[in-house]
Amino acid sequence: MRISVEQLTGWCVEALTHAGVGQRDAETTADVLVTTDSWGVFTHGVKSLRGYIRRVRGGGIRKDGRPRVEREGLAWAMVDGDSSLGMVTSTFAMEVAIAKAKQAGIGYAGVRNSCHFGGAGYYALMAAKEGMIGVAMCNDIPTVTVPGARGAVMGSNPFAFAAPRVGEPAIFLDMATSTVAGGKVFAAAKVGRTIPNHWIVDADGLPTSDPTIFPDTAALTPMAGHKGYGIALLIETLSGVLTGAMIGPHVLSWMFQDASRPTGHGAAFIAINVGAMMPPEVFEQRMAQTVKEIREAPKAKGSERIWLPGEMEWERRAKALRDGIELPDDVVANLKGLAEDLGLNWRWT
Amino acid sequence: MRISVEQLTGWCVEALTHAGVGQRDAETTADVLVTTDSWGVFTHGVKSLRGYIRRVRGGGIRKDGRPRVEREGLAWAMVDGDSSLGMVTSTFAMEVAIAKAKQAGIGYAGVRNSCHFGGAGYYALMAAKEGMIGVAMCNDIPTVTVPGARGAVMGSNPFAFAAPRVGEPAIFLDMATSTVAGGKVFAAAKVGRTIPNHWIVDADGLPTSDPTIFPDTAALTPMAGHKGYGIALLIETLSGVLTGAMIGPHVLSWMFQDASRPTGHGAAFIAINVGAMMPPEVFEQRMAQTVKEIREAPKAKGSERIWLPGEMEWERRAKALRDGIELPDDVVANLKGLAEDLGLNWRWT
Repeated sequence: MRISVEQLTGWCVEALTHAGVGQRDAETTADVLVTTDSWGVFTHGVKSLRGYIRRVRGGGIRKDGRPRVEREGLAWAMVDGDSSLGMVTSTFAMEVAIAKAKQAGIGYAGVRNSCHFGGAGYYALMAAKEGMIGVAMCNDIPTVTVPGARGAVMGSNPFAFAAPRVGEPAIFLDMATSTVAGGKVFAAAKVGRTIPNHWIVDADGLPTSDPTIFPDTAALTPMAGHKGYGIALLIETLSGVLTGAMIGPHVLSWMFQDASRPTGHGAAFIAINVGAMMPPEVFEQRMAQTVKEIREAPKAKGSERIWLPGEMEWERRAKALRDGIELPDDVVANLKGLAEDLGLNWRWT
Repeated sequence: MRISVEQLTGWCVEALTHAGVGQRDAETTADVLVTTDSWGVFTHGVKSLRGYIRRVRGGGIRKDGRPRVEREGLAWAMVDGDSSLGMVTSTFAMEVAIAKAKQAGIGYAGVRNSCHFGGAGYYALMAAKEGMIGVAMCNDIPTVTVPGARGAVMGSNPFAFAAPRVGEPAIFLDMATSTVAGGKVFAAAKVGRTIPNHWIVDADGLPTSDPTIFPDTAALTPMAGHKGYGIALLIETLSGVLTGAMIGPHVLSWMFQDASRPTGHGAAFIAINVGAMMPPEVFEQRMAQTVKEIREAPKAKGSERIWLPGEMEWERRAKALRDGIELPDDVVANLKGLAEDLGLNWRWT
């Protein structure tokens, strides 16, 4: 079904405030989720709201939580998320990283006591809006195996970056460090399709094309083998080990585990202040040249266009803002379920 | 052939000083290269010395170059490498990043006027030796295609990180953002083997298993498709665009192009001061727990061990320090060629 960005955002704010979340935090959360849907990344948008609100009502997410800086230095801060909504804590922490970068050129904000934060790209783009290069990452419950193991060992630990443009949408990449996101495996299982046999491993740690065993006895594979494993461990180090957050295996599933308990996710945000290091117009000229040379490269047989990271997402967003978002059925089902949970009206069909 | 780490280092220093490089810069360069060989990463070790010295003698690498900080702030610096040896500039820049991180918690050093810097892991590990998390990256001439293109568009832009341990070797990952390093394709071509058909694309941008067409009409593939492309672009942004270095397509090949001209490589180094943010013993306890949980994960059918990033390299290095380094033939051939170039004696067979 199709719904406008404004209507969807408004309804999410309504659901969140109905569950007791303050207006401002509800608006922040709704903006993160609906923006992610508007990029076409439906696995990390409003689909998750039902689960988040279940935790809010269970008490595992504090509806009146207030993230705060616990310790800080010239170019860094450690944020205690106070078990608030992941979007509230993460936007707070990226703002802190940006403020540090304004002073020092680069800023790092580590986070503990967070929750699932949705699409990492949103936070990286907060820095790009300030003319900075932004990086966002977090840890998560283990769903990804590592070379030599069977079963889940690492989280799918997402990583995003954004680089600012002047008069052009920012370049951004938002990726899991698994070969594919778990959502893609769930989606295949839901519609009864098999999957390529390098996406997950079975109970023996061997390749399989059966999505239905995930996540019970299967685990995702790390992207590019040992490289994805290593990058996931770097993300765990910056998001979990260094921040005092729960480390991967000790994080709770925001979706499946006891909604009365905090999940304990960690996260990390970095902002790099371009303008402190180079006149912004010089950076833009150099970035524009780089982009031009990529775009104008000879095309592969059968290819008509080379896309920049984030460009597909911006085109989808422009369409969504113009024509509304075409929500997939599984997302709509979750929103309807949420409406029932809360005794709210879902006015669209 | 086998040679001790000390003998190999000593000979490299001799070759460099014979070419007019100062004693200290020669020792720095030799240590980077031989350390890399001792990890078993022979594509990025002393094999390259002949090419570097050819550029030193041609004037494209300044034998008496002096890297210096051009601009700086609380937590960042921009380094002009003065077209010195890449190892001299990179160790200087990582020292600057470490010094910034001592003051501010995190430090970024961008570099222009550098050259090929060898193995990125060495520089990341400089930070780990100081109890910091280190990150190192650089741009390079295009050798990697991007989705939708044929031919090389991006460099294989390497990325390395290291995380410190107490009483244990640091965790470290040193990787190209291509599916495999170009050296592996050259190696297959040299011994007449075919390669898996996802390593490179042919002149049409289509898969091929023929390594002999690389790099003339072929290009490497990015690791994990659009993810590796995006990460390579982030590395280009931090190493090239933001630093004022040559951007990928304008970098010269240190190996194949006019040795009288600087290559113009860029690089970026980040150090994160663990001790400023968390008591080092707490970090170590948390890291030890993380490592233990990874190592003790159930093994895949047929697997006996889960390796940490860098662990294979440290075991090879321990063996190299004990028994000497077993240099592959192509490396020995380059060293003998270098001895001839310089009229030096190569005393081993």
